[in-house]
Amino acid sequence: MHYPEPITKLMDSFMKLPGIGPKSAARLAFYVLDMKEDDVLDFAKALVDAKRNLSFCSVCGHITDKDPCYICSDTSRDRSVICVVQESKDVIAMEKMRDFHGLYHVLHGTISPMDGIGPEDINIPDLLKRLQDDTIEEVILATNPNVEGEATAMYISRLLRPSGIKVTRIAHGLPVGGDLEYADEVTLSKAMEGRREV
Amino acid sequence: MHYPEPITKLMDSFMKLPGIGPKSAARLAFYVLDMKEDDVLDFAKALVDAKRNLSFCSVCGHITDKDPCYICSDTSRDRSVICVVQESKDVIAMEKMRDFHGLYHVLHGTISPMDGIGPEDINIPDLLKRLQDDTIEEVILATNPNVEGEATAMYISRLLRPSGIKVTRIAHGLPVGGDLEYADEVTLSKAMEGRREV
Repeated sequence: MHYPEPITKLMDSFMKLPGIGPKSAARLAFYVLDMKEDDVLDFAKALVDAKRNLSFCSVCGHITDKDPCYICSDTSRDRSVICVVQESKDVIAMEKMRDFHGLYHVLHGTISPMDGIGPEDINIPDLLKRLQDDTIEEVILATNPNVEGEATAMYISRLLRPSGIKVTRIAHGLPVGGDLEYADEVTLSKAMEGRREV
Repeated sequence: MHYPEPITKLMDSFMKLPGIGPKSAARLAFYVLDMKEDDVLDFAKALVDAKRNLSFCSVCGHITDKDPCYICSDTSRDRSVICVVQESKDVIAMEKMRDFHGLYHVLHGTISPMDGIGPEDINIPDLLKRLQDDTIEEVILATNPNVEGEATAMYISRLLRPSGIKVTRIAHGLPVGGDLEYADEVTLSKAMEGRREV
């Protein structure tokens, strides 16, 4: 027993977080001991508050502390476009871009038959309900560009085809600032496929 | 405002920790949201407990949840040797080695005239009090091998010279597994100076 028990417990908690091993956990735990008591209490409160006071928006599924979320309740946004993403984190990434002013729909996962996750297990039924509203003109599928994300996008696009709503998929290609030399073949092939006249 | 407020607050708390920037803070905050509520509550409790229930051992100054600490109250330890270190973390590093079975004395800092830190500001007076006990035969100075650590070791060794107690300093030299080619000149010079017959 090298550490007093309260430190061991704190280290154990830190080690449950991603990317934090025993050495980092010890460093963080000792750092906490040197922090001001108020800061530590704020930290503890922030943890509990974040876990307890956040829920999912009943409209779009984005994580929020009030329902509907600040995006769904923002009357200045374009209500004719819905961008479908996998996770709340993706909404935040899109919002940082500041270019998109429509609404979102968070799926909370992807269709993954291997893991027994079907369309009913992710937030697709709610999406269909939202689309019964005539104001929606376009659905942008912004799931991740990997196997599950593609499959989910494909599934939703087929599902919506009869409705006549315009369904688009975000572009694949070389990341800006990227290097052709280091791009993988699939990305390069997608970039060629998606080429546009300039 | 990209994040709901409880997430922003949690991110702010994470960002107060060393080595955690905005991106890691967001990743950790979202991870916390997906954690089991019990784990989050345990984490919050561990933070508060570590801050509130830990104090310094009245004998050696090591961080502890009971006084005297588990090392000072361990009757199987050799009470004739005291190893002087800068921080509680150093005690733990020494204990991991499992080779030292004496007692410790934690200074909580080093003498640093530049920062206005004199011998009275660190845990030296308590060390002198402990040395009045006749059982102590050796004091090992294990402060860090840098300017402040050396100066502090030098100061303590001069202070103890009249008492007749044996005062030793841990060895400087090449770290095990290190590479002569990459060793700095001072370390190499110390390694030569400290050479021993084999």
